[in-house]
Parts: sequence; C-alpha cells; structure tokens
Amino acid sequence: MKYLFKNALVVTMNQNMEVIRSCDVFVENGIISAVGMSGAKERCDAAVIDASGKLLMPGLINGHCHVPMTLMRNYADDMDLQTWLFDYIFPVEEKMSGEDIYWGSLLGIMEMIATGTTCFIDMYDHMNCIVKAVEESGIRAHLSRGVTNFEEGTDFSRHKGLNEAIDFYRRWNGAANGRITGAFAPHAIYTCTTEFIRAIIETAKRFNAPIHVHLDETRVEHEDCLKKYGKTPTRYLYDLGLFDQRTVAAHCVWITDEDIDLLAEKNVTIAHNPTSNLKLASGVAPVPRALNKGVNVILGTDGASSNNNLNMFEEIHLASLIQKGVNNDPLLIKAKTVMRMATTNGAAALGAKDLGIIEAGAKADLILVDLDKPHLMPLHNALSALVYSAQGSDVYMTMVDGRILYENGEFKTIDKEKVRYNIKKCCDRLFG
Amino acid sequence: MKYLFKNALVVTMNQNMEVIRSCDVFVENGIISAVGMSGAKERCDAAVIDASGKLLMPGLINGHCHVPMTLMRNYADDMDLQTWLFDYIFPVEEKMSGEDIYWGSLLGIMEMIATGTTCFIDMYDHMNCIVKAVEESGIRAHLSRGVTNFEEGTDFSRHKGLNEAIDFYRRWNGAANGRITGAFAPHAIYTCTTEFIRAIIETAKRFNAPIHVHLDETRVEHEDCLKKYGKTPTRYLYDLGLFDQRTVAAHCVWITDEDIDLLAEKNVTIAHNPTSNLKLASGVAPVPRALNKGVNVILGTDGASSNNNLNMFEEIHLASLIQKGVNNDPLLIKAKTVMRMATTNGAAALGAKDLGIIEAGAKADLILVDLDKPHLMPLHNALSALVYSAQGSDVYMTMVDGRILYENGEFKTIDKEKVRYNIKKCCDRLFG
Repeated sequence: MKYLFKNALVVTMNQNMEVIRSCDVFVENGIISAVGMSGAKERCDAAVIDASGKLLMPGLINGHCHVPMTLMRNYADDMDLQTWLFDYIFPVEEKMSGEDIYWGSLLGIMEMIATGTTCFIDMYDHMNCIVKAVEESGIRAHLSRGVTNFEEGTDFSRHKGLNEAIDFYRRWNGAANGRITGAFAPHAIYTCTTEFIRAIIETAKRFNAPIHVHLDETRVEHEDCLKKYGKTPTRYLYDLGLFDQRTVAAHCVWITDEDIDLLAEKNVTIAHNPTSNLKLASGVAPVPRALNKGVNVILGTDGASSNNNLNMFEEIHLASLIQKGVNNDPLLIKAKTVMRMATTNGAAALGAKDLGIIEAGAKADLILVDLDKPHLMPLHNALSALVYSAQGSDVYMTMVDGRILYENGEFKTIDKEKVRYNIKKCCDRLFG
Repeated sequence: MKYLFKNALVVTMNQNMEVIRSCDVFVENGIISAVGMSGAKERCDAAVIDASGKLLMPGLINGHCHVPMTLMRNYADDMDLQTWLFDYIFPVEEKMSGEDIYWGSLLGIMEMIATGTTCFIDMYDHMNCIVKAVEESGIRAHLSRGVTNFEEGTDFSRHKGLNEAIDFYRRWNGAANGRITGAFAPHAIYTCTTEFIRAIIETAKRFNAPIHVHLDETRVEHEDCLKKYGKTPTRYLYDLGLFDQRTVAAHCVWITDEDIDLLAEKNVTIAHNPTSNLKLASGVAPVPRALNKGVNVILGTDGASSNNNLNMFEEIHLASLIQKGVNNDPLLIKAKTVMRMATTNGAAALGAKDLGIIEAGAKADLILVDLDKPHLMPLHNALSALVYSAQGSDVYMTMVDGRILYENGEFKTIDKEKVRYNIKKCCDRLFG
C-alpha cells in the first residue's frame, strides 16, 4: 500500500528539528520514501491523505508499560505502595488468565494507538497472549517476560519464568515483519536473587539480547540495597555486568550523580515515568542531570493501574512541567527536549535508527494531529503546542509500518465492541 | 426549556459524595428540579437526553484565569518569568485592542466549555469586551478589572483603571440572569502601592464586593515583601484589611504556616494553579497543609500563555499527582478531595450554594462525560476515573443555566469558523 500525505505541517524530529509547512510525505511498503514539497503527480497510484490543517509527526514510543494492567485501571488508588501492590494488584494478577491478558492488552493498545503511540516497551507475563494482541492490532512492541526469583540457588534450568522468557525470545524476537522485538527482564533487584540476575545476564548474552529492568524506583529499594549490598542499585547491577547488554532501566528516581556516570558510561537508557512516580509517591527522577551527562532518557506511562491511562501526551506534558517546577528553573526540559524523549530517544533505546523520525528511509510509524481545536489556536509554535497544549485526543490518525491502525475515531484492526464486551466479562470474573 | 437526562451515572458532589447509577435528572428553567430514579413519565414535555453510558456531573469551576491571553498561547515558552513577562507578554498586551480581547475571550470560552468548565473566575482589562463574549456564549463568569498603580499618592479619583473597575462593577455585577458577577482586583502587591490597595479595599467595601488578587506567587514576591514591609505578603494584606472582603487569592505558592492560619481565619479562598506554577517554575503550593487547616482551595488554569491551555481536567489530574509525588505521600489529595476543589469549593469561593452540585434547587450547570472511551474502561471507580484517567475531550455536553452550550463536538452559541478567522486576523496584526 502506498500513501501520500498532502500539505501537512511536518514535525520531522530530524537532527535539525526541522518543522516544514505544506509538506508532502510519501509512504511506500511501510517505509517513508520521500519528504518534500512535491512528488504528488508521479505517484498517482498512492492513496492520498489530505493533511492540510493537520500536523504529521513520528509516532510516540512508550518506553515502559505493563499493558494488560488496564484491567486494574482505577481499581486501587490513593493508597500506599505496599497496600496497593500486596492487597490489590498481586491478588488480582494471580487470578488473571491468558484470556484476561489478551483482552487487557488489546484495550491498552486501543488506548495507545488512539493517543499517538506507535511502539511500546513492555514487561509482563503470559507473553503469547500479549504477542497475539500486538500481532492482530498492528502496533509495534518491544516485549519481555518479566521474571522473579526469591529462593537461593544457582541452578535455574527448570525455572518456569526464565524458560518461558527464553521460549518467548526464540520464537518472537523479530516476528511480524520486525514489529515485535524481545528482551530479557529481571523484574527488579528486590524481586530477584543475585544468582538469578547473573543467570539472566548470561542468558541475554547468549542471545545477544537487550534487557528491560525496573531500577531504583523507590527510596526503600535504594536504601535496602545500600544496606544489603553496600552499594546503590545501579552500582550493584553495573558490577554484575547487566549493563553490558543494551538496557532500558525504568524509573531511576533515586539514582546518584555517580550512578548517572555509570549509566552514561554504559549507554543505559532511562525510561522516565513521571505520572506513575508522582502517583505512587516515588519521587521525581533527576532527568535534567541525566540528560546533561548524555544519558538517553525516554518516556513511559507505566501500567494503567498506577497512572491511570496510557496517554503519552500526558507524560510529555508532565515531564516538562515537573522538572521546571521542582527545580525552580523554567528553562529545564524545553519542548524540543521532551519531544526527543518521546520519539528519537525511544528509537535509540531500541537500537533503531529508522524509528521516531520523518525522513526518507525511516519506517512509516506516523501520526496526524488535528490542529482544528480551540486549544491549538493560534499556532505560534508547533513544538510548544504539542508539549504544552495538545491532548492525546487530538490524534486523528495513527499508522504503523505503513498501515493505518486508527483514523478519525475508528479502529481499523480492533473490534471495539468485542473488546468492550470481553473486558466486562473478564472484570466480572476477576472482581465480581 | 426543560430537559430530562435519562439513565446517567450521576456524580452528585453532594455532602455524601453520592454516585448514583441509572439516574434521571430533570432540569427546568435553568434549575435542577429533581434527581432520582423515576420522573420520566410525568415530564413528557421535556427534551429527553439519553445519558446511558455517560456520566453526569456538575460543571467545573475554573478558579483563576485571564481568558484573552489565548492569543499568546505557545508564543513564549521555556523562558524565565522576567523575559517572558517584559519582553514578550507586556509588549503584546500593550498592542491589544478591544477587538483582540473579544475574540481571544471567545476562543478561551470555546476551549473551556468543550472541556467541561461552566464557570470561570477572571481578571483582565477591556472588561466590556470580555463581558460581551461571556454574554453571547452563555458561560458563567466572575469577572474583575485588574488594576495596577506604581506611583505614590493618595488621590485615586481619576485613576483610569479604578474608575473602569467601578463602572464595570456597577454595570455588570449580577447581569445576564446572574451569570455575570463582579469583583475588584488589585493585581498584586508588587504592582500596587499600599495606598492604592487601601483605596481598592475601601471601594470594595463600599460596594460590598469581593476581591480577586494574585498572592505570594513567586519567591521573589515573598522575599521582596519581607524586605520592604517586614512581613509576608499574606500578613501585609491581612493588616490592610483586604481579607475582610470575600477574597480569591491566586497562587499562594510561598505562604507560611502562619499565613495559612490567617487565610483560614478570614475564609480566604486559595486558587491553586498547578500547571502555571510548575511551568513558570514558581514552585508547588502547600495545598495539603492549607486544606488541613480548613482553607477553601479551588483550582485554576491561569492564562493560556503560562499553561498553555484552559483544560480543567489537566489541573484536576496534576493537583492530585504533584502533591503525592513532591511530599512523598500517596494518600494526599485523593480523588474526592480534588473533585471538591474543582466543583463545590469553587462554588463556595463565589458564595454560591447552588453551584457545583447536582441536587434539587441547584443551578443546571452540568456536564456529560462520555464513558465509551478505551481509557475509561473498565470503570471500577467513577471518581478515580475522572481524576486519573479522564481527558477534557471526554466531555460530551456542557450546559450552563439550563442551556446547552456544547454537544457532541458542536458549539451551540459560538460560530467556530468566525472565531478561527478572527483569531488569525488578530494574530496577524499583533504578531505579524
């Protein structure tokens, strides 16, 4: 399928952050093949999309999520982390079947594509069911089977989670025309023994695979690690060699300046989740300091049970505001910086130079933002408008790999009624 | 006109925070005349609105705004307050004509009614033009002519701003079926001499009128006041007797515990503007402490040039998140607390017991929220959904004084095309 976007206001996110008015963008076989002011005539075999009055930009990359947790959205709020996790979340998760995971994932994917996310980085369980939802919906995803181990020991050859993680990686990494990529995911330092983390690192090395991990999310995690190992969580994983693999480390709220140096040295990506960190009262991650030292920082929503939505426009907005306010500096995390975090930095985290950008040769993961909204008038500055004024609901169209998944309120690959019906069924069983 | 809302999920915001399923609400002559499970048959002369799958709640009250500043939306971002104000905002404001004010106000009102705001508290200039926009659009507004005076002296009988403020109050307080109410507004302690503030207080007393003022927004304001007057801004205004009038004090970011006691003693309302305070790096107001001491706290957007939108759902969301995260306490500013701030507390600030609530006898300022959105599924808890998941764009219908102003994307009282055309014209002249 070929598409020609006509007369868009194009936010390229290229090196010079070019914003081009009345620009045409041509998409061929899932790839952006031309960006410019002409090209319409010789490509009359393409479906033409009138993008006047709309802004075309790279799709957003959600850097940290647990997509099936949509089922627990607004189920447990305004409580402390321990109560939330042990009295509410874990008991429900124990009851969740593959069926629940599948429908919960589809619901989360609906929300993401309706608000401009074209790729998400996820860690959860029942991977085959999440894969099914990703495959069918057409979204792009970097997935990992999150694993935990609380018992001492060194032989993990029969560890259920790790074996499932290996099976998942073997079977699905690179699947669906490369839309699905895999990683290994030790859940966190407080849910995995040292030997288990070693085993996962070895496994990841064997497959030359990346790693996704929760890191230094709470003060408790930080202080417990200092007590137990005499070092920070970052130093602990650094010393284990975990960061020798390409790593996305979610949260990093409590990292020290020395930790930042270690993360920079190893090219570790920080997935910053401002809403979740505020809502669970974890704190505010030192993002400006990390960026200053050259660390790649991306943005994530975390799961819907600690957010409570999967709307990347909210994270963009909040990531910029919170640092200015808390650090007493209005110049921090400018519009262009936070837009990088949501697009090209996400691509860098995945080792993908052809994502998060509009230029010839890049993958056609694109969104159209409808500018005909009161809150987007006047349009003095497109980047500021995207960061400070825009809403997820301003997304008019979402395309992944050159395929339109969502347009004008309509889901092209997902049966909304069926999802609504089945979510109700799942919830009746889980919570009824 | 009579309306019957059928089968709504009603968030009443009444004393017991009742949330009623499958509820009918009857509206007659601008007043809610019945709330309950029946009543459909005997009221067949009413226009029936099928509200199944929708949530009916009181309209939101925007506690602090400068509505015409929409014209400067996304015009000056990521800069310090001094540069922003003196190099960008003031020079444009000097050029603004009544025409600009009128169209900018209409644009802001469009945005507010499309995102569920039914009443706003505003302070600006060219009041007749703002009044015109309020009258025509049908929204409710508490307006004041903001005044400043930098020159020493005690005779203000010829002060242009003060005379305009008096004329405005005389002419418009209580106008448009009571939709428009007035106040006097000394802009701030750093833009008014002591004698001028005294004169405004005297004037407000003469008219038995309320006051709207900026208070303790920045550290600079706080410290300069300590230096100049030997007391905090709150104590300074308290000693002048300003708080003897019903007062809305915007921001209060730097207030001390003793200040909070003074505000509580005088029943002063704090208008909290979380987005603006973060974006301009003013800081985070001590809202939990103020609430604990019984101060009435409401929510505001501030102007669109420091936000950059007028979407109260964002302020609701942020007001809850920011306090949890910054104070390291996930139990702070729970969903029900912040919903009170956006509704009934706003009504209390206006001395209006018949606003911000769904009960028989209250004014029919109502909004319908469409629940058929992926991010509002499942619906475990309506209040949590409104605070943590909902978007301004979920608002399906907005009614003020029993009149529908907005429904299903359509503005009933405002010509959107005309506003777009004229906003462009104004901006071409102001910024061209």
